[in-house]
Formats: sequence, structure tokens, C-alpha cells
Amino acid sequence: MDLPSPFGATTAMQHRSDGGVTISRDLPEEMAVAMVYDGTTHAVMMATPADIEDFAAGFSLTEGIVAGIDQIASCDVIAHPKGIEAQMWLAEDRGAALAARRRTLAGPVGCGLCGIDSIEAAMRSLPEVADRGPMLTDGEIASAVLSLRDWQPLHDRTRAVHAAGFMLPGQGVVLAREDVGRHNALDKLIGAMAWQGIDPAQGAIVLTSRVSTEMVQKCVMAGCSVLIAVSAPTLHALRLAQDAGLTLAAFARGEGFELFCHPQRLRAKVPHVA
Amino acid sequence: MDLPSPFGATTAMQHRSDGGVTISRDLPEEMAVAMVYDGTTHAVMMATPADIEDFAAGFSLTEGIVAGIDQIASCDVIAHPKGIEAQMWLAEDRGAALAARRRTLAGPVGCGLCGIDSIEAAMRSLPEVADRGPMLTDGEIASAVLSLRDWQPLHDRTRAVHAAGFMLPGQGVVLAREDVGRHNALDKLIGAMAWQGIDPAQGAIVLTSRVSTEMVQKCVMAGCSVLIAVSAPTLHALRLAQDAGLTLAAFARGEGFELFCHPQRLRAKVPHVA
Repeated sequence: MDLPSPFGATTAMQHRSDGGVTISRDLPEEMAVAMVYDGTTHAVMMATPADIEDFAAGFSLTEGIVAGIDQIASCDVIAHPKGIEAQMWLAEDRGAALAARRRTLAGPVGCGLCGIDSIEAAMRSLPEVADRGPMLTDGEIASAVLSLRDWQPLHDRTRAVHAAGFMLPGQGVVLAREDVGRHNALDKLIGAMAWQGIDPAQGAIVLTSRVSTEMVQKCVMAGCSVLIAVSAPTLHALRLAQDAGLTLAAFARGEGFELFCHPQRLRAKVPHVA
Repeated sequence: MDLPSPFGATTAMQHRSDGGVTISRDLPEEMAVAMVYDGTTHAVMMATPADIEDFAAGFSLTEGIVAGIDQIASCDVIAHPKGIEAQMWLAEDRGAALAARRRTLAGPVGCGLCGIDSIEAAMRSLPEVADRGPMLTDGEIASAVLSLRDWQPLHDRTRAVHAAGFMLPGQGVVLAREDVGRHNALDKLIGAMAWQGIDPAQGAIVLTSRVSTEMVQKCVMAGCSVLIAVSAPTLHALRLAQDAGLTLAAFARGEGFELFCHPQRLRAKVPHVA
């Protein structure tokens, strides 16, 4: 069974102060996607039915299920009428590690952790990103989200999906992925980069969304050291970025941006006033 | 321990084409919130640390853990340095039902369901909303999201959180809640309405976000029959709304809106052209 189209047409009654009219609208599709490792379902997300191999690889990397793409021995995408399975088989030692991790979660409970342990897990600190990393100019950061607009065909149709892109110094955005969920778009980007052998440490990740805790976690887990977003970070996301050494630029809207931490990767052209 | 402030100030370097300057910015806080039933953690979400009793009640209702607020025997909010626990004790029969549901999920697995079962669960159909429900005018729907602006103090400070409000015919928005997560804002609203004895069937829920599958699921589970949002639905969210009898209006942006299904609750003032 093939994957369904990532969007479809529907009709709506458009109401305006001067009357109403029936219009046609392209809306984004949304389906359940199950991440299945060695025959066992690990998680189910609602997502755009496209680029599922990328999603599977990115999710596996940013959730720490694998340390590298080579630890995914195979990945088959199976479309069902109501959703999609990403059936992955892991390299032997990694599969054993995941099974052991699951056993510690087993029992007649929701997530298997007490409230405080669960909170600690959600608020965990991150490894530090490498000192090296791209040097970017003011102009590259300011225009990053605008450059991403050329990579958003689904958004052009529906006006309703997020994108995550990867930008290289001097080259602009070189790869991007879209999804109805911003976390999924980022996982798809990171997975696509892994399959294509693109090193996240060489450039910046660019987001059409706000920067929540999980967006910083995913960037750092992918090994990227610069994150640029159109909208604000949360305070906790900022603290994580500060501790992990991640350069975080937000409100990047063409005419400017705001740099929240780790300016050492900025090749500033203009003087700054403290 | 008291809950932390839902926002805090930080500094950023604001870069513009004519120079740079250090500015102060209020950013929204974000913390792990654990939903704990009868001593066992059920879920952990990243959320704004405010209105946690509302969040706990709304989550319990929209996830089907309780059928009514009276089935929550007690709810204590415990603040820890890294997060918050909502410690709920359920009415005896409900606690037994949840424990039984958990036992079927037990085992050395992620979520305990196979890929196809997990997909079915995520894509589940919904009960139908009641035939009755509010009658709203064109103007009320068009201006609903604008009216919600008066209920967004955290957004006024941070420009970076979502809101969910409840609107009654002829009265405008009568209650709203904010959160960094749009799902959480909706759960908080639904919980606040439950604690205050406001019947969701009498009015419309208004969202500052897009309408994904889960937003429709939560509205219907709360017993509300009209959903108005500033941005687009997904195709699957629309199908769910159609099947459940939910009136779905989107792109509600002051000057107009688009009605996607179940127009029977619209008191149209203007003629419509097919």
C-alpha cells in the first residue's frame, strides 16, 4: 500500500462581512505513525505521511535509541489504512540495549517511573555540543527563516505545516523537511541528514516555530551547535542551550534577530552596544 | 514549595541591519508536569507552571481517565525544584478501572500495543456531540479569536504562548487559559470549566492555534460542539469533527472565517452563494 498524499482538497464556506461563498481548500493530512523496533512498538505520533524513513532515523537518533544511523540494520515503511508503521531492526547490541531499557520500564504502570523520577527524566541535562561549529554572519542568521520559504511546498499548498531546515555558511538552506508537527519536522530533517551523510556540526538548524525544550534537546542530540528560529525560546529551553553550548538565535525575521546565548559562532559585521 | 513564575526576564543581543543592542526579554517558563493517579505516574508533559489543578482535571477528562470531575477525589499540586506533580486520588471504582487498563499495557514493551493496535488507538473515532449546542452568529465566530486577546496576559508579556478560551453566545469569551503547549492550554481550559461548573455544551471553544487531531478529540471528549480556531485544521481532524457532529470554524481572523463542517449551529446574517 502506498503512502497517502500529504495533503488533500476539501470545501469550506468562507464567511466575510459582505457575504459567503463556498471555496476549495488544501489541508494537510495527518496520520498515526508507529515507531517499531525489533517487532515492538516504542511510540506512536500523529504526523504528515511523508519522509517516514527520515522520521524513523531522526526519531531514533534524537531519542537516543541509536547512537548512529549504522545501528539501524533495516527500516521498512508499511502503510495501513489508518496509519503507518516504521519497522526498524537494530544492530544486535543496540537491540539488546533497548530491550534492557524497556525491561526497567515494565510493570503495571503508565510510564513506570515515579513522579519525581519522571520529572528528572523530562528535565534531563544534555551533553555539550562540540566547540567547533559553523561561523555565521548577521545576515545569514537574519535571513535564515526567509531562505527556508523556498523549501516549503506543503506549506505553500496548506499554509498549515512547520518546516525545519539545515543551513551551511555561505550556501544557505541545503535541506529541509515539513510536518504538521514541529517536533516531527525536526526529526525528519535530522534523519534525512543522517541518511545523506550531512554533518550537523557544520551548519545551523532553522525552524519555523518556537523553541521549546524538546527542540533544543533534539538539536543537541543530533550534534548541531547553532539553532535559529522565527519565534521565542522558553526559559528552560534557553537554560538547556546555555548549558550545552548551543548558539540560540530567535525572532529571526529578515530584518534582524535576537541572539540569546553563545555568540562565539557569530561573525558580526556591525558594532554592538552593551 | 510555591510554583515558579510562569515567565521570567532574560537578556538577548538584538541584531538589526543598523547595529546591535542588548535588550531585556520576558520568556515563558516551561517545566515537567507529572500526572500521578493513586500514586502512579501516568504521563509527564512540558507545560507552563500555572493552573495545574485545571490542567490535571482537564487532562483526566479529555484522556477519558475520569468521566466527570467528581471522580477525582482529591488533587494536590506539589512543586519540586525541577518540576511539578499533580497528585490525584480517584474515586474507588475509577481507580480500579485505571489500574485494570494499566495491567493490559504491562510488559517489557514501549506502549504495550503492536504497531497496528497502536495506530488504531491513536486514530480512534469519537462519540457524537449532543445535537443541541449554541447558536452563534457570523460576527461572533469571526471575532472570537480577537476577543480572546483580552485573556492572554502571559502572551502579552512573552509573545510566545497559546491560549484556549470558552465563548458563550451573546457574552463573548468568559474564561481562558494559557500555556506554552496548545494541548495543555486546552486541557487547562476544560479543567477550569469543570471545576467552575461551566457546561461546555452551551458555548464554543476558541483556539489561537491550528486544529490537529488531538484538539478535536479533546473538544469532543469535553462535550463541546463548536470549535473556532485562528488557523487550519488537518484533514484527519476535519474527518473526526465531521463524524462527531462538531461545528468546526477555522481561519477566524476578525474580518471573516471559514466553516468546514456542521453549519447548523450558525445563525447566518448574510446570504451564501454555493
